[in-house]
Amino acid sequence: MRLDHNAAGVFPIAPTPFTEDGRVDHGSIDRLVAAYREAGATGATVLGIMGEAPKLEPEESIAIATRFIEGLDGLPVIVGVSAPGFAAMRSLAHAVMAKGAAGVMIAPVPSLRTDDQITGYYRGAVEAIGTDIPWVIQDYPLTLSVQMTPKVIRSIVEEHPSCVMLKHEDWPGLDKIAALRGFQRDGSMRPISILTGNGGLFLDFEMERCADGAMTGYAFPELLVEVVRLQKAGRRDEAHDLFDAHLPLLRYEQQQGVGLAVRKYVLMQRGLIASDAQRKPGAVLNAAGRQEVDYLLARLEARLGAAYPMKRAA
Amino acid sequence: MRLDHNAAGVFPIAPTPFTEDGRVDHGSIDRLVAAYREAGATGATVLGIMGEAPKLEPEESIAIATRFIEGLDGLPVIVGVSAPGFAAMRSLAHAVMAKGAAGVMIAPVPSLRTDDQITGYYRGAVEAIGTDIPWVIQDYPLTLSVQMTPKVIRSIVEEHPSCVMLKHEDWPGLDKIAALRGFQRDGSMRPISILTGNGGLFLDFEMERCADGAMTGYAFPELLVEVVRLQKAGRRDEAHDLFDAHLPLLRYEQQQGVGLAVRKYVLMQRGLIASDAQRKPGAVLNAAGRQEVDYLLARLEARLGAAYPMKRAA
Amino acid sequence: MRLDHNAAGVFPIAPTPFTEDGRVDHGSIDRLVAAYREAGATGATVLGIMGEAPKLEPEESIAIATRFIEGLDGLPVIVGVSAPGFAAMRSLAHAVMAKGAAGVMIAPVPSLRTDDQITGYYRGAVEAIGTDIPWVIQDYPLTLSVQMTPKVIRSIVEEHPSCVMLKHEDWPGLDKIAALRGFQRDGSMRPISILTGNGGLFLDFEMERCADGAMTGYAFPELLVEVVRLQKAGRRDEAHDLFDAHLPLLRYEQQQGVGLAVRKYVLMQRGLIASDAQRKPGAVLNAAGRQEVDYLLARLEARLGAAYPMKRAA
Amino acid sequence: MRLDHNAAGVFPIAPTPFTEDGRVDHGSIDRLVAAYREAGATGATVLGIMGEAPKLEPEESIAIATRFIEGLDGLPVIVGVSAPGFAAMRSLAHAVMAKGAAGVMIAPVPSLRTDDQITGYYRGAVEAIGTDIPWVIQDYPLTLSVQMTPKVIRSIVEEHPSCVMLKHEDWPGLDKIAALRGFQRDGSMRPISILTGNGGLFLDFEMERCADGAMTGYAFPELLVEVVRLQKAGRRDEAHDLFDAHLPLLRYEQQQGVGLAVRKYVLMQRGLIASDAQRKPGAVLNAAGRQEVDYLLARLEARLGAAYPMKRAA
Repeated sequence: MRLDHNAAGVFPIAPTPFTEDGRVDHGSIDRLVAAYREAGATGATVLGIMGEAPKLEPEESIAIATRFIEGLDGLPVIVGVSAPGFAAMRSLAHAVMAKGAAGVMIAPVPSLRTDDQITGYYRGAVEAIGTDIPWVIQDYPLTLSVQMTPKVIRSIVEEHPSCVMLKHEDWPGLDKIAALRGFQRDGSMRPISILTGNGGLFLDFEMERCADGAMTGYAFPELLVEVVRLQKAGRRDEAHDLFDAHLPLLRYEQQQGVGLAVRKYVLMQRGLIASDAQRKPGAVLNAAGRQEVDYLLARLEARLGAAYPMKRAA
Repeated sequence: MRLDHNAAGVFPIAPTPFTEDGRVDHGSIDRLVAAYREAGATGATVLGIMGEAPKLEPEESIAIATRFIEGLDGLPVIVGVSAPGFAAMRSLAHAVMAKGAAGVMIAPVPSLRTDDQITGYYRGAVEAIGTDIPWVIQDYPLTLSVQMTPKVIRSIVEEHPSCVMLKHEDWPGLDKIAALRGFQRDGSMRPISILTGNGGLFLDFEMERCADGAMTGYAFPELLVEVVRLQKAGRRDEAHDLFDAHLPLLRYEQQQGVGLAVRKYVLMQRGLIASDAQRKPGAVLNAAGRQEVDYLLARLEARLGAAYPMKRAA
Repeated sequence: MRLDHNAAGVFPIAPTPFTEDGRVDHGSIDRLVAAYREAGATGATVLGIMGEAPKLEPEESIAIATRFIEGLDGLPVIVGVSAPGFAAMRSLAHAVMAKGAAGVMIAPVPSLRTDDQITGYYRGAVEAIGTDIPWVIQDYPLTLSVQMTPKVIRSIVEEHPSCVMLKHEDWPGLDKIAALRGFQRDGSMRPISILTGNGGLFLDFEMERCADGAMTGYAFPELLVEVVRLQKAGRRDEAHDLFDAHLPLLRYEQQQGVGLAVRKYVLMQRGLIASDAQRKPGAVLNAAGRQEVDYLLARLEARLGAAYPMKRAA
Repeated sequence: MRLDHNAAGVFPIAPTPFTEDGRVDHGSIDRLVAAYREAGATGATVLGIMGEAPKLEPEESIAIATRFIEGLDGLPVIVGVSAPGFAAMRSLAHAVMAKGAAGVMIAPVPSLRTDDQITGYYRGAVEAIGTDIPWVIQDYPLTLSVQMTPKVIRSIVEEHPSCVMLKHEDWPGLDKIAALRGFQRDGSMRPISILTGNGGLFLDFEMERCADGAMTGYAFPELLVEVVRLQKAGRRDEAHDLFDAHLPLLRYEQQQGVGLAVRKYVLMQRGLIASDAQRKPGAVLNAAGRQEVDYLLARLEARLGAAYPMKRAA
């Protein structure tokens, strides 16, 4: 089970569940795994930014990834291995691949500016992890402050056969997907999988621009699965109708910093994790915010309740 | 007619209409003015970022502001006077106040980092324009890369009696509004008007956090007016129902860079401006983007058509 | 007298002299002009960052440039026309060329990140000012936060025949000069003039890497002229001996922010400008700083006095 | 042996020596240790930015710190524990303190902007490592892009009794030292040790502004020791004479990125480390650069040879 460029569908970005006193909550990982499977996810991505990866110690990271891999039992798991240095990146990549990961995801370090710096960085990363581990480019300028043009992405893809996927999280980014698919059509770039992030805020149209699916952490992964399915089936209006019903909450989750607190709160309310605790530093959802989320959940339930149950069965 | 801290309602951020060959289109300014009045706007804000202010020559800026001021005939007009230097800021501020502007808006220069640098900058700005011109703090970290805490805003407000309003455009920013209102309640900050931006993406909840209204450029200003009105009347569910109907388009407009192209295109489709031309440099809405906007407009019309007509009467 | 790629020698970056109450001091411009001529400068550059250009009104900018052009009477004057928008850039460029400027200098706007954004920006700038005005790329990442690789500079040079010079102010930047000269040797880039900045901090070695000279504001332009002359004459050790004698002061001037205050103070002490006043906002050299500069000047005079007189003859 | 606010003198920032094939070279650590002792260093700082800390695995970091601690045998060793997350920071801090470190050094994460974010970050860091480990604030805006005003530093110092030192590396920064010493005099801040960085580029004047010494990586630590000694003895002119003789090389080392390559090359030439190899990614000193450094070393030796021998005795 190794990731390749045919990957499609929905890879939820998994949060790392913690107990109130800051320990990793492996029981909640099991609940998340069950929910992802039930939602129809194709795989999952762990230890990303949303997974609070930099707050973990190396052994914790390996244990968390392993728990997800074992739980998803055959579904591909992508593990974020971004690190300030290549030594730590290599160690983690080798460790999780040995545990059965399908591939790894690599974000650029925030100091990169020029096109050459970016391609040079990925050259170093591949040299570090080796050329036989399938990997994903994480393109997230809003948080990482690194801007990759389609041409730079193409250079990276062409240089590294083991690069099989783009996690697309530019904003705005619809034309970037189109440009990359254009490169594939004109033969200047081999095919890659493109899964989109940004909390799903543009998923409705990203699918129409030929994304292969979503890789993001919206707390109703079944919505992501369904929008992807409807769009692939050509049922455009239905896809938008469903998407629009979720958009008020989805928009609320898509806030820098506090967004993770919102998501963990919703996941907790849904029964998918036991606590919405984060390790420090972390933004906190205060009482006013919780009430707003409760209101949005109530409205969503009123509108779509049967199809999108707040609570998962135990 | 001078701006004060009681300002409330909706001040649309006006685009600057251009002809296809790059001249200022004064006829379209008149159409915008008519639409703003008809929509129930309280005033308007011109020469902001959305108004392509840095692309204008000084005489053009004054002429545009004057045209809006004369057209709005008694409704307060706020003029953006942000500039890389204080000499240009002072000139423009004095010129437009002489023409009847109600106040000016000042964004920080992007290089500011520390709290002291920010308060020092506004001290210099007020020294430049004089203490008798009412002015608005523009707080827009996503674009300006300057982060102002509530405490810094309070310092500025307390130091400068002529500062009467905050254009709130932090993201996420709901708790910032709450913190500032808390300062007013505990007596540590005098009252100011808070109008919110971000394309309206959180207007539904911003009003519940005690914003006074909106100052943003969504191409259906009547929606902003109505949401503000419903929330102030305590009709929460109705406000959200209406807001949610617009959210798919509103979300699409709220894209960095290409957002202005989307808005000008919608305004053109609605008959409010003759052309969606921008001066260079400017992002262009390509065919795929236009089709997406058309689709969103069609869905909006299908849902709310009578109340939110695509086309304004001539 | 139009700038071309053969330009060499020293173009001092001129400060803009102000009176204590903030008016432009044209008399001090005349003194600077006399000093530049006497020092053996090849030309001069005005309205750069050091010239406090963003703090000037358009008419002031034109008047200052004109005064320098007339005073230098036949020596080429390069005028900084960097602006947040192309309309202001075009106006100023046309105005100063009509007054006899030899060319203009254009810095990128600070928001540019990718290689394509940078080349796109210069495309827009040349479209704005026209293809017949000789111009200079200003490459100053430390202050402008835009990083241009040698390849990007080559693209710009090859695309625009009117681009004739690079103001090289990357830090570190010795290998960048070498890379560009390599492009010339391998035929992939036509020849350009390269003048170096950074206050002259690496001028000793920049000349050995085949720079054509210096364009910077060190308050002893005769030192720059002499180092350039000695290096071109192959008198390496003498060039370094002289350079090293100035290095303590030169290093002190080369401080971000306060550097301009240091330079204006030295120029005032030397009798080249009447006041070291800056327009706001500007860093101030306090008493401790002035004493340190006095100490460095005294040491320099003790070492090189006859050759590098503190005071210019009236 | 725990660090306190009386620390003074010179703490060289140690590079991490690697073999050509990228392994940690413990033998060269021993040579560095001997050279530091012989140079009269007061202590040493390891695993800083110059120590390529982010490129190390946790066990390597602990082993390197331990080797320095054991070798310096009683001289205080400060260990950099900066990390993207607090868990890794805590682990490393506890591990090296158990091995005998005198204290730790903590840099802010690059994303911090507002004063509150900075003080909040250090609150989290102290909570993570505990209140009983003496620690150093690393203030290095040029590389870390975090700007701390003197007031922010005072807040941190006052809040955390275990904060005993500032590594001062702002640029320009002379007035920052003066401001902090002013806080001590007016009683608003308890005394702290201030050691300065920036490669020593302003050490001559930093000592006159009442710094306690230097913490930087110039490849002749004996020069740092001697300048500090002379300034403390009030022998100002001698201090400057000596400093100025080193300034051409010191300036050459003080280049962002390539500076570490220069230093490792000089240390290798001096026989203090076996190889100038860096782990990737790292800037390389090419042939032209090596020749320039050789030239500067030859000039330095010609001038000061007996006092500042190129080669250390074996």
